[in-house]
Amino acid sequence: MQQETEQGKTMYELLEKLFPICRSITGNGFRESLKLIQQQIPVGMHEVPSGTKVFDWTVPKEWNIRNAYIEDEAGHKIIDFKKNNLHIVGYSVSVDKVIDLEELQSHLYSLEHQPDAIPYVTSYYNERWGFCLTQQQRDQLVSGKYHVYIDSELKQGSLTYGELIIPGRTEQEIFLSTYLCHPSMANNELSGPVVTTNLAKWLASAPRKYTYRIIFIPETIGSLTYLSRNIEAMKRNIVAGFNVTCVGDERAYSFVPSRYGKTLADKVALHVLQVKAPEFVRYTYLHRGSDERQYCAPGVDLPVVCVMRSKYGNYPEYHTSLDNLSFVTPQALQDSFELLRDCIELLERNERYQVNCLGEPQLGKRGLYPTLSAKGSYGGVYHMMNFLAYADGTNDLMDISQLIGVPVSELYPIVDKLLENKIISPNCFH
Amino acid sequence: MQQETEQGKTMYELLEKLFPICRSITGNGFRESLKLIQQQIPVGMHEVPSGTKVFDWTVPKEWNIRNAYIEDEAGHKIIDFKKNNLHIVGYSVSVDKVIDLEELQSHLYSLEHQPDAIPYVTSYYNERWGFCLTQQQRDQLVSGKYHVYIDSELKQGSLTYGELIIPGRTEQEIFLSTYLCHPSMANNELSGPVVTTNLAKWLASAPRKYTYRIIFIPETIGSLTYLSRNIEAMKRNIVAGFNVTCVGDERAYSFVPSRYGKTLADKVALHVLQVKAPEFVRYTYLHRGSDERQYCAPGVDLPVVCVMRSKYGNYPEYHTSLDNLSFVTPQALQDSFELLRDCIELLERNERYQVNCLGEPQLGKRGLYPTLSAKGSYGGVYHMMNFLAYADGTNDLMDISQLIGVPVSELYPIVDKLLENKIISPNCFH
Amino acid sequence: MQQETEQGKTMYELLEKLFPICRSITGNGFRESLKLIQQQIPVGMHEVPSGTKVFDWTVPKEWNIRNAYIEDEAGHKIIDFKKNNLHIVGYSVSVDKVIDLEELQSHLYSLEHQPDAIPYVTSYYNERWGFCLTQQQRDQLVSGKYHVYIDSELKQGSLTYGELIIPGRTEQEIFLSTYLCHPSMANNELSGPVVTTNLAKWLASAPRKYTYRIIFIPETIGSLTYLSRNIEAMKRNIVAGFNVTCVGDERAYSFVPSRYGKTLADKVALHVLQVKAPEFVRYTYLHRGSDERQYCAPGVDLPVVCVMRSKYGNYPEYHTSLDNLSFVTPQALQDSFELLRDCIELLERNERYQVNCLGEPQLGKRGLYPTLSAKGSYGGVYHMMNFLAYADGTNDLMDISQLIGVPVSELYPIVDKLLENKIISPNCFH
Repeated sequence: MQQETEQGKTMYELLEKLFPICRSITGNGFRESLKLIQQQIPVGMHEVPSGTKVFDWTVPKEWNIRNAYIEDEAGHKIIDFKKNNLHIVGYSVSVDKVIDLEELQSHLYSLEHQPDAIPYVTSYYNERWGFCLTQQQRDQLVSGKYHVYIDSELKQGSLTYGELIIPGRTEQEIFLSTYLCHPSMANNELSGPVVTTNLAKWLASAPRKYTYRIIFIPETIGSLTYLSRNIEAMKRNIVAGFNVTCVGDERAYSFVPSRYGKTLADKVALHVLQVKAPEFVRYTYLHRGSDERQYCAPGVDLPVVCVMRSKYGNYPEYHTSLDNLSFVTPQALQDSFELLRDCIELLERNERYQVNCLGEPQLGKRGLYPTLSAKGSYGGVYHMMNFLAYADGTNDLMDISQLIGVPVSELYPIVDKLLENKIISPNCFH
Repeated sequence: MQQETEQGKTMYELLEKLFPICRSITGNGFRESLKLIQQQIPVGMHEVPSGTKVFDWTVPKEWNIRNAYIEDEAGHKIIDFKKNNLHIVGYSVSVDKVIDLEELQSHLYSLEHQPDAIPYVTSYYNERWGFCLTQQQRDQLVSGKYHVYIDSELKQGSLTYGELIIPGRTEQEIFLSTYLCHPSMANNELSGPVVTTNLAKWLASAPRKYTYRIIFIPETIGSLTYLSRNIEAMKRNIVAGFNVTCVGDERAYSFVPSRYGKTLADKVALHVLQVKAPEFVRYTYLHRGSDERQYCAPGVDLPVVCVMRSKYGNYPEYHTSLDNLSFVTPQALQDSFELLRDCIELLERNERYQVNCLGEPQLGKRGLYPTLSAKGSYGGVYHMMNFLAYADGTNDLMDISQLIGVPVSELYPIVDKLLENKIISPNCFH
Repeated sequence: MQQETEQGKTMYELLEKLFPICRSITGNGFRESLKLIQQQIPVGMHEVPSGTKVFDWTVPKEWNIRNAYIEDEAGHKIIDFKKNNLHIVGYSVSVDKVIDLEELQSHLYSLEHQPDAIPYVTSYYNERWGFCLTQQQRDQLVSGKYHVYIDSELKQGSLTYGELIIPGRTEQEIFLSTYLCHPSMANNELSGPVVTTNLAKWLASAPRKYTYRIIFIPETIGSLTYLSRNIEAMKRNIVAGFNVTCVGDERAYSFVPSRYGKTLADKVALHVLQVKAPEFVRYTYLHRGSDERQYCAPGVDLPVVCVMRSKYGNYPEYHTSLDNLSFVTPQALQDSFELLRDCIELLERNERYQVNCLGEPQLGKRGLYPTLSAKGSYGGVYHMMNFLAYADGTNDLMDISQLIGVPVSELYPIVDKLLENKIISPNCFH
């Protein structure tokens, strides 16, 4: 427990370091962020040149920004990118001119119904420039001249992503994907990378059955790029995957299923959520909105789900400056980490076990059954007997858990005892 | 709309012309009726000789009637076939004799609980003679002698049916069957032939994907006869069919499914009914009663359903003289036509579409997606995105409509846009 | 009806004769009981030597007991095996010594919450000795010395079981299993053997479609032993089976399904129970507790269910001296017999029938349909028409019963009429 609280703190500290960096789907902010993560886990950094075709898309030019502000006639910087990198529309081109308020207004973005929030706006595939500000700031603008200044660069460069493969006993893979392309926002999206970093540390701490494929990418274009380079191996090996995002706030858990909701990832996530967070909000695939859009697309068909706290798009702070360091907590990061860890542990333990003999095994001769038979003496081994009744090689642990009404955590020691006594074996033919 | 009301009137006018003719399952009444229909659509007339074996049945002798009445002692025609052809039991043999009331009674049919209605009675497969009259007429009969006179003919002739094939781009067929064997009754059964005639006109007015097999037959023996001559082609080609009957009154729609209710015809009919007439009455196959009895019989197994207004057997006017010209209306004929037309349009448009690329297509570069990404900008293309998410080649339009909660009529323009932009294709392998 | 009451009495009389015998899973009590049954049906007696391996188990030594009691200091036999054979822990080894109360207590078994009941306790696979008594008897014990005396024998002998095969027209089998290893208890377990004996008599009284495999065994080790010798034939031939137990009391019926509840035995039993005893208690396979544990074990997978009155383990008298001759009645034995007989009759009659022609058969020409067609004339043959509609070779009688809402008992005469008229045939390809 002490150790676990430690982990929550460590995750939060990494999040604090990452927070000020101005990231986008390409550029140095992404690289700088990935380097901070490399200090904790050995994730590799990969570059894909601008102009590369990825399925129906093209990797865009690389964008970097040095400075940006709006000055009023008196020379005061009334909007300053250096104070909050959300002030700039992502992928804004350079500008340096004096314009009047009317023209300026057509380049400003604010939220009427959240007057104290700076919105997060981007224009990746159409060249524009623009500033984001609070409605309160906007309402104070007066007629007159304004100096708008953006010093940015849009060039043939590359898209960056991180990849870490942790080999297991089998080539079958569990897939963790998280995105790192947002500027200063905490829940969406720094909670994902820091929880994923912690999951990677925990996974590397002991031998595992599955191989783990863990990636840090820019959203959408990053998942498309990664898929276009790895889809064959991914379709062959991945048995379950999680898009790790929005896992830092303390509100109820959320779940977005895969396209048809029938994959192993769906089964595991629902099983764990129903036990550990039964009040979770169950969305449909119609409410998807992140990289599962690519992973679960027709023809891609990977078994990927989202287990979140407040779902992207469904909390007021989403995509604004209010999604800040005070919105996420060490405890929430810790809890989300543990829930995802439980999903992975269940995947690691999950098998279709088969009893080794015909008829019931004689538990008594192995000390697993009372030798005196009287009314009620059956009770103590009731769960073990029921487990064995359905250990026919067709049901996995979750199926048996449902069939006999016993949580998987109570089945783990039963399985251990039965394996140790050679009463059951994993069914290799399923 | 104006045009549609026109069609309702045209259908009603045809119905009025057909109404006075004395039809039966064979004979000149049927031929005369079919000739009136031939004035509107190029339906072919076919004859099948009496005595022809059709499965477990035999085509009966041909029946024609010239005159029939009952005269009282004073020489008054108290019952006259020329006033209402329902007065005669269908397939009555000739008779010309004077009998007393007691003997007469054993040849009379009336309805105690509908005292002002003449019932519709037939005896196709057992030689009889009889008169039908209202209970009120019957109650006025007094002891005495009566002259019963029927001038009919039962001969080796033929059974007549009409067939119209409208070729489409594929050999796959939509099947429309309607029956034309009832004497002067309007809803059951002249509404069916007139709505079918109008559907045939509409189908011929433009090129179609499917070939249309449209038949006008006597009920039961006609569907058996037609099946016995065409079953191989029908089983090979028909993808959906409708027994068009009882479509002329203004009451709620009714639905009788196919034997197991799982065919494409069931799916289409239920989809359209649920949107356009959600208050429809849903019967089971146990309530069948018309030619679907043959089309859905074991071994025949055609995908045929009934979409009706008041279902045969379930409205008080059924099989009586009360099912007359005032029971059906131009508006009801028009509405029923439109509902069946919607079913057919949906069949014509229905495909299993498949997205042409891996991952989401980049809608933005085709002007189908906003280039500026901010909170809520996704909304306008939400249905298109969801359509694409399930356009994986396994779902037809109706499936996607259910999955994403959008009526097919709203999907048509989305499909058109996506086809035009070559983003999706019909899946030819399903 | 008179005859049926006779059968109830005959069953009860056999039960009364069997009651006093001290049975166990091996030994002369079992043999003596089986010989009483042999007086009524030609069941064979088989012996399997102690030490024989049966799957994961071993046939135990044979146990016989001659005498047992506890004497107080005054020489009074305060507990006497000869008064009630439940007083001895089954498989107790010999003892003959004087001990004080404290030591005695560790060998005594009573039921605190059923102070007037002697419990039934056994220790087959661990050598022990012990006495069972009522809590009232135990509470009267005073400090002092007690003479404990058990004259029993545990030797290399054999396990005994009975087997009766009644050949039918096919090699496919119905399986009846009942156990005969309990000392003086009436519902569990003498009701099973006496009802099974009566079923065997009834089965032998007429030719049958199925072959009947009927066994009288000791519970658990007996079913395992029998399975180990016959599993191949049983898996090949058995289409449905019943573990006949707890069928003698007058309380509500109970049902324990097979492992997944989807076998023909489940279907038949539920069909009959729902019609004849709709208030029956439906348990899950988690509540199993008798030989179905072996018959339905993974890899064995026989279609075996339990149809009972008060379920083993779920009635207060269970496994105590209160499960006595007054707890079971001739009427209950009779009713249970009839319900199981109905299950078997249904199995014997059950087929997937198929109509012999395409389209509806012409019932009229066979006198099965009214020749005059008027409103409502269809009513009398409604069930026959609906039966034919679903007689497509894929539905058995129970399926059609469900589909058309008519009990199988009403379908039997319809089937007979249709077979007689060669309108349907059994479908041999299912």
